[in-house]
Amino acid sequence: MDRVERRAVLRTGLLAGGVGVAAVAATRAASGPGPAGQDAASPASGQGSRAARPATLPFRGPHQAGVVDEPQPFAAFVGLDLPKGATRQTCRRLLRVWTDDIERLMAARGPLTDLEPELAAVPSRLSVTVAVGPGFYAAAGLEADRPSWLAPLPPFEVDRFEPHWPQTDLLLQIRADSPVAVAHAQRRLVVGAQPLAVQRWVQRGFREPLTAVRPGMPFRNLFGQVDGTVQPATGGAEDGLIWLGSGGLPAPQGLAGGTSLVIRRIAMNLDTWDEVDRAGREHAIGRRIATGAPLTGRVESDVPDLAATDALGFPVIDPVSHMRRAMPLAPHERILRAPYSYDDAPGPGERSNSGLVFVSFQADPVRQFVPIQQRLAEADLLNIWTTPVSSGVYAVLPGAGAGEDLGAALLA
Amino acid sequence: MDRVERRAVLRTGLLAGGVGVAAVAATRAASGPGPAGQDAASPASGQGSRAARPATLPFRGPHQAGVVDEPQPFAAFVGLDLPKGATRQTCRRLLRVWTDDIERLMAARGPLTDLEPELAAVPSRLSVTVAVGPGFYAAAGLEADRPSWLAPLPPFEVDRFEPHWPQTDLLLQIRADSPVAVAHAQRRLVVGAQPLAVQRWVQRGFREPLTAVRPGMPFRNLFGQVDGTVQPATGGAEDGLIWLGSGGLPAPQGLAGGTSLVIRRIAMNLDTWDEVDRAGREHAIGRRIATGAPLTGRVESDVPDLAATDALGFPVIDPVSHMRRAMPLAPHERILRAPYSYDDAPGPGERSNSGLVFVSFQADPVRQFVPIQQRLAEADLLNIWTTPVSSGVYAVLPGAGAGEDLGAALLA
Repeated sequence: MDRVERRAVLRTGLLAGGVGVAAVAATRAASGPGPAGQDAASPASGQGSRAARPATLPFRGPHQAGVVDEPQPFAAFVGLDLPKGATRQTCRRLLRVWTDDIERLMAARGPLTDLEPELAAVPSRLSVTVAVGPGFYAAAGLEADRPSWLAPLPPFEVDRFEPHWPQTDLLLQIRADSPVAVAHAQRRLVVGAQPLAVQRWVQRGFREPLTAVRPGMPFRNLFGQVDGTVQPATGGAEDGLIWLGSGGLPAPQGLAGGTSLVIRRIAMNLDTWDEVDRAGREHAIGRRIATGAPLTGRVESDVPDLAATDALGFPVIDPVSHMRRAMPLAPHERILRAPYSYDDAPGPGERSNSGLVFVSFQADPVRQFVPIQQRLAEADLLNIWTTPVSSGVYAVLPGAGAGEDLGAALLA
Repeated sequence: MDRVERRAVLRTGLLAGGVGVAAVAATRAASGPGPAGQDAASPASGQGSRAARPATLPFRGPHQAGVVDEPQPFAAFVGLDLPKGATRQTCRRLLRVWTDDIERLMAARGPLTDLEPELAAVPSRLSVTVAVGPGFYAAAGLEADRPSWLAPLPPFEVDRFEPHWPQTDLLLQIRADSPVAVAHAQRRLVVGAQPLAVQRWVQRGFREPLTAVRPGMPFRNLFGQVDGTVQPATGGAEDGLIWLGSGGLPAPQGLAGGTSLVIRRIAMNLDTWDEVDRAGREHAIGRRIATGAPLTGRVESDVPDLAATDALGFPVIDPVSHMRRAMPLAPHERILRAPYSYDDAPGPGERSNSGLVFVSFQADPVRQFVPIQQRLAEADLLNIWTTPVSSGVYAVLPGAGAGEDLGAALLA
């Protein structure tokens, strides 16, 4: 499948299912070779003798990196808490330290205190994205400014949360083309934050790295499923789905140019999934495994025909298939997904410890994400094999302008 | 540093230290862009539109893949045990299953029973290397044939073994350019082995993946240290250091074309390492961090001058520096190293869980590896920050000839 085809913007006024919905524009952004508008610039800014893509991403600008950029193959998500007694001054200091360190790390220089600058020196499209949770607003004395969506998601029937991954005051999303760069940046930022913030947990993930040499490969999770087909377009008319303060809506105080990040850790039971044949898997997903095409279509980008029936009169796409339940029922029910697989060392007696770090960006998680998740929780055949074991909601800070610290507008 | 320089074979008759040693030939193999003799063929066999290296490695031949090949950036080491009551027939069946499945996986096809062949279909230089432990010989009724070195290493003073990673009957070393390929192959081989073998543990590791686009980058561990500078040459006069039955020595029964694999998990304390400045780190290592050059030299390949002293008359290279202690004192004290970093999710209260999966290949670990490890255990400044938490010794089976199963000669 070539790049142009993958990036083609599909426009259709048809979405079946009895719900009056029109004009859904979708483009493959996060799973394809890159968001339109960024990709074109890539070859020109490429560094390194044979690197196919730009080796560094810009740190400064209206938005932080790591949101609409093509997801790099390696990621660490680090949950941190402010210390007891933290004040707005603590928050300011922390964000000053991180602003300096992140700018240097993303430019492939170590922070000033870095004793292993060589580990930072391989340009690997590092992005570090800083997001804050409800506790950050509380510590900063900004409760009145906290967006209403910056709160735990409503409980879903399928949730089986483990105590290891609580909502935290802060989240660092660290992504790069190299796991060495991720490990090094993570460590430098966590150590550099002391004692202003303390690490609570780390979730690591990966995507297929060879898309760099074979563009157009879709993201497949460890079920083999093509994931993240329909994405909002970025850099245009649909920016209001992602960026706060775009699309005519006012941004919450201090967050214009930011967004929200939902992170949910989804355990995937590969053992019971192994017991299901291809037909059963495709039935549960609603798409072909080989191509990601809907069961009524030929290619991934085909619009599903929800009214199609088989010879016996049954719907070709099961009403409780994952795709059918995840499909937006209103134009605003769309999110920018940037998930990662995890495959951690199994515990004693386990054969695998695998799943998905589900990550999505959206201007308003309650309006855009919750209805989708609610439908999935109520009925989704994939729930047989998947279990959400954590959930967090964060506000991604706006980008830092020249000479500015991250969070400057919020903490002003 | 260019490829030619990195691959240059250094020949010197000088090794100081009062031990009569001569003619040590060393070449960077495992950490450089590839063993001489393999690299030249790479571009010709390259697959994929922009792939710089061959996308598949051959499975059949006198040796298994994954030993002298340039280490791919991602690895999983899987320890498995035979079930109670296993016999030679169990061993034969298991190796028949694995032979078929590994051949297909390495050719970027899924095993016949693979329900996610798409995850296998990205050619990513996958290699799977099968090795056996003492328990395999016992189960197969081959105690009399077991090489004397196929036994636990002698205990070293620095060892602090954890119960999670015992010596096992079998080891799979799975390496590839993609962590997705590693995860998928691992799962298919472990599931496919049931009930003939049961997984006991998994150790995952990584190296800098961007060497593919930037050849000549050395392997740096998470201390920032250039690791694995001096390696035996492969494909020539020094083959006897690695391959059993080469170099004039008879191979143990059934192992001609095989080798031995030592795997030691080395926890690295990044917190206390952080407290040491550059000078202190270089003193402990005996090499410059930036270049890997010995403290008396300019480039990584320079031969250390152990007699050099500073203005105060102290040796420039400390007698208990890591490099000095690891340096071979006899021509046979050389091993082919293929280590991987690990950076697992920290446990509660931990800031990091990082270290090195040390892996080496050698014809005889007792003769070649143990003297080095003994010196390191007795005195090595790096021991302040490093702790071996597991150790295993395995016999790597010879390669499978056409129509042959792995282990055919051993189990005949």
